[in-house]
Amino acid sequence: MIGNFFEDFFVGQVLVHATPRTVTEGDVAMYTALYGGRFAVHSSTPFAQALGFACAPVDSMLVFHIVFGKTVPDISLNAIANLGYADGRFGVPVYPGDTLSTISRVTGIKLNRDGTTGVVYVHSVGRNQRDEIVVEYARWVMVRKRDGTSAAPETVVPDLPTFVAPASLHVPVSFAVGAYNTQLGGSAYLWDDYHVGERIDHVDGITIEEADHMLAARLFQNTARVHFNQHVEREGRFGRRIVYGGHVISLSRALSFNGLANTIGIAAIHGGRHTNPTFAGDTIYAWSEILAADAVRDRTDVGALRIRTVALKDRSASDFTYRDATEAYDPSVVLDFDYTILMPRR
Amino acid sequence: MIGNFFEDFFVGQVLVHATPRTVTEGDVAMYTALYGGRFAVHSSTPFAQALGFACAPVDSMLVFHIVFGKTVPDISLNAIANLGYADGRFGVPVYPGDTLSTISRVTGIKLNRDGTTGVVYVHSVGRNQRDEIVVEYARWVMVRKRDGTSAAPETVVPDLPTFVAPASLHVPVSFAVGAYNTQLGGSAYLWDDYHVGERIDHVDGITIEEADHMLAARLFQNTARVHFNQHVEREGRFGRRIVYGGHVISLSRALSFNGLANTIGIAAIHGGRHTNPTFAGDTIYAWSEILAADAVRDRTDVGALRIRTVALKDRSASDFTYRDATEAYDPSVVLDFDYTILMPRR
Amino acid sequence: MIGNFFEDFFVGQVLVHATPRTVTEGDVAMYTALYGGRFAVHSSTPFAQALGFACAPVDSMLVFHIVFGKTVPDISLNAIANLGYADGRFGVPVYPGDTLSTISRVTGIKLNRDGTTGVVYVHSVGRNQRDEIVVEYARWVMVRKRDGTSAAPETVVPDLPTFVAPASLHVPVSFAVGAYNTQLGGSAYLWDDYHVGERIDHVDGITIEEADHMLAARLFQNTARVHFNQHVEREGRFGRRIVYGGHVISLSRALSFNGLANTIGIAAIHGGRHTNPTFAGDTIYAWSEILAADAVRDRTDVGALRIRTVALKDRSASDFTYRDATEAYDPSVVLDFDYTILMPRR
Repeated sequence: MIGNFFEDFFVGQVLVHATPRTVTEGDVAMYTALYGGRFAVHSSTPFAQALGFACAPVDSMLVFHIVFGKTVPDISLNAIANLGYADGRFGVPVYPGDTLSTISRVTGIKLNRDGTTGVVYVHSVGRNQRDEIVVEYARWVMVRKRDGTSAAPETVVPDLPTFVAPASLHVPVSFAVGAYNTQLGGSAYLWDDYHVGERIDHVDGITIEEADHMLAARLFQNTARVHFNQHVEREGRFGRRIVYGGHVISLSRALSFNGLANTIGIAAIHGGRHTNPTFAGDTIYAWSEILAADAVRDRTDVGALRIRTVALKDRSASDFTYRDATEAYDPSVVLDFDYTILMPRR
Repeated sequence: MIGNFFEDFFVGQVLVHATPRTVTEGDVAMYTALYGGRFAVHSSTPFAQALGFACAPVDSMLVFHIVFGKTVPDISLNAIANLGYADGRFGVPVYPGDTLSTISRVTGIKLNRDGTTGVVYVHSVGRNQRDEIVVEYARWVMVRKRDGTSAAPETVVPDLPTFVAPASLHVPVSFAVGAYNTQLGGSAYLWDDYHVGERIDHVDGITIEEADHMLAARLFQNTARVHFNQHVEREGRFGRRIVYGGHVISLSRALSFNGLANTIGIAAIHGGRHTNPTFAGDTIYAWSEILAADAVRDRTDVGALRIRTVALKDRSASDFTYRDATEAYDPSVVLDFDYTILMPRR
Repeated sequence: MIGNFFEDFFVGQVLVHATPRTVTEGDVAMYTALYGGRFAVHSSTPFAQALGFACAPVDSMLVFHIVFGKTVPDISLNAIANLGYADGRFGVPVYPGDTLSTISRVTGIKLNRDGTTGVVYVHSVGRNQRDEIVVEYARWVMVRKRDGTSAAPETVVPDLPTFVAPASLHVPVSFAVGAYNTQLGGSAYLWDDYHVGERIDHVDGITIEEADHMLAARLFQNTARVHFNQHVEREGRFGRRIVYGGHVISLSRALSFNGLANTIGIAAIHGGRHTNPTFAGDTIYAWSEILAADAVRDRTDVGALRIRTVALKDRSASDFTYRDATEAYDPSVVLDFDYTILMPRR
């Protein structure tokens, strides 16, 4: 009820997180209202079925947020900072009616020099009611110690890949080349049309309201306190509630329709950093850079695009603001997200 | 991605809009939470089935907003103003599970005298997954030219009806006279009880929040920028985001339950004007006048009422504020909506 | 349309309330987004089915709010105050797809000494489409007279129980002892582990936004004007919209997961007082005291816990703030709610 502290974690520990969640068409509608996504495969059952899906699959990031939300009470209720993600791989598609639950294993632990905080590494796995993996990822967070004087545990730092190898991507369905309708998809551009190094301004900006981001975090059953409690946060470092970082990811992904309309899902999350806090009132813009365009093994219907999506607050993405000469992030940058999407090929 | 400009349109052009949309019970719940509608036919499946519907049909205006939302990226992303609607006719009922898509045809084009903007007329048709029409309407918008010096196209202005003739209304289902339960419907008044010229104060007022109207526009996948981006709009004409005009229509329709409770759907939209902009913080009231009470051909179970619904901001509707002696709209009037509803007969 | 006044009520009067409501998965998702509830039985269909439910039952308070919302236009549109609840008993579980409607009977009436207001007592019964009771309760409200000079009716005050006897609780399903999964439930504590007099701090706080509480009240089709109309309320007693009292109940119940995670439903509402008004911007905390732990007749799988949940605004629940020495409520107390939950036994 008050969450785990640094001393409560040990390498090899398995955490069975509470509150399995049946995802419904209601969750999908709420997600649409929160982000306004327009990817056809998530919006239309006939469109999705023409590609071989059973019906419109749930957006990858909604799956991620639900799986992630379950871990908060056990892992990050006393977290000071989300330090990173790695090795995120999406599995079988999630459809309305599926029930998701999450189990995490502690893979590493390291006391910080200050002696009052430490880093905990976990590997979290979300599964559906048939025990099939829907998404798994590594994450590390900085957690408070309960007691500054307790002994330091042996340091274990897991070996995490800097990126998910294309060969290990799970590609959900196979479809006939040419079956994809680009008019309904919203863009003439398919996998073949993108080039490594290309930068895309996603053009639009969306202003965040307090009600929005709290509705989102509650939908995901994410209980992290900094998002909800103005009575406490007004005395805190920023004087106000902090927007869930995943909210910014979902906004950016919805914005990325402008330029990446034919995305049919996220296959991998290589890493992600919330480089500055986001607050209600901020207007989020986003741009993306194509980092790699990979063929998918044994597939001619679909290809993978590794992308960096950068979200900015209160600054248009038209000049692709990112880092300065010292590699420090511009103060307007709130998200640096490295992931792989799937897109039909010609 | 940056939308069409005046020069991109030509008469006869067909625009297949992106992102077909499967409407679900989730969308209906979100719509209820946004507007609070209480019409029994849209709220209760048994009530709707007793009238011959397969289940509770989706509210006509939710259908309209979804069909309309698809047209925004192609038609009105660079629009300066929504000039008008005409000839709106609703078709077959929409049920949760149906998938809607929209195709528009350009029916007219006219360069304005200033040479920098023009008017584009379109006819948009929303269809379900069986290619049945769910709603169609004409609309004209003022659009920016990309280049002030390009040549003017030949002017074509379509011949639009001032109203939809009662004989061309589509009336969805037939039910036994007397099958309608007025207690559950919420009012003793049926079609026979309304008189031309009668004015109805819908009594209640609802204050709009930024979160509300943005959730609504995103639910409808309407991407018009003025609704979402405070970072840009604070430098704009009004200094703030503008509420989607359709949001005011839906609020007014929900308010119209007070006085028109037994409405079983909208059959036609004759015209509509957003006479003043609406902003978060405005409280919307509405009143209606019965413009015509028409029998429906070959039907004794249901009649048509042509209605003008006027929405006001920050002013009670009890004195039916409308236009002044010079026919100018009162500054409190934000919507002048001319449409036809269906209602059971005695 | 303008609601009933004191003179319109008489003992024995039956009010068939309008707008039956089919509850859907969409409503459940919206409710989750509004409150963030994490009780496994309401979140997961497989979890609920393992306990004998047909699927995840709708949260008891969502059922209550929908049943209650229907009564507002007929009973409390002209109410000055909600004076109390009693004898609330939940019946059969509600599942998505069920249609709820409400009928109330006036059971008492009493003119106040000032001659301009009176108290109306009603017994309201919510039923599903099979005419099975889902919830019933007594309520009394202070209502305005239309005309200060009309004669006083004979005073009738119904005999209401101070609490619902454990023997009359409806317990929805039977399940095998040991079938309950406490890891997925979120807590190791079952019915046997709670002790009368024990106080539980529910720890977290949630700040209310105007958009939140209005979305909630509209979802419940609750039309009470004080929640929606800032244009009127800014001239009113508080200068702003008042949050629906039921919104605070639902927030408190969601917060009560911290400490009462294995709750499988509410069986009874013994009483409830909204002791101070709640406004947007208030942060709600809650604590509970176990008032009684009762066995349930003929059942070894589940027990009843009678609980007082107290909600506070802008004050942590860690010191269990309640009443002062004179029995007056602390100004931070906004809800004093006396009810019975069900929880699995060991």
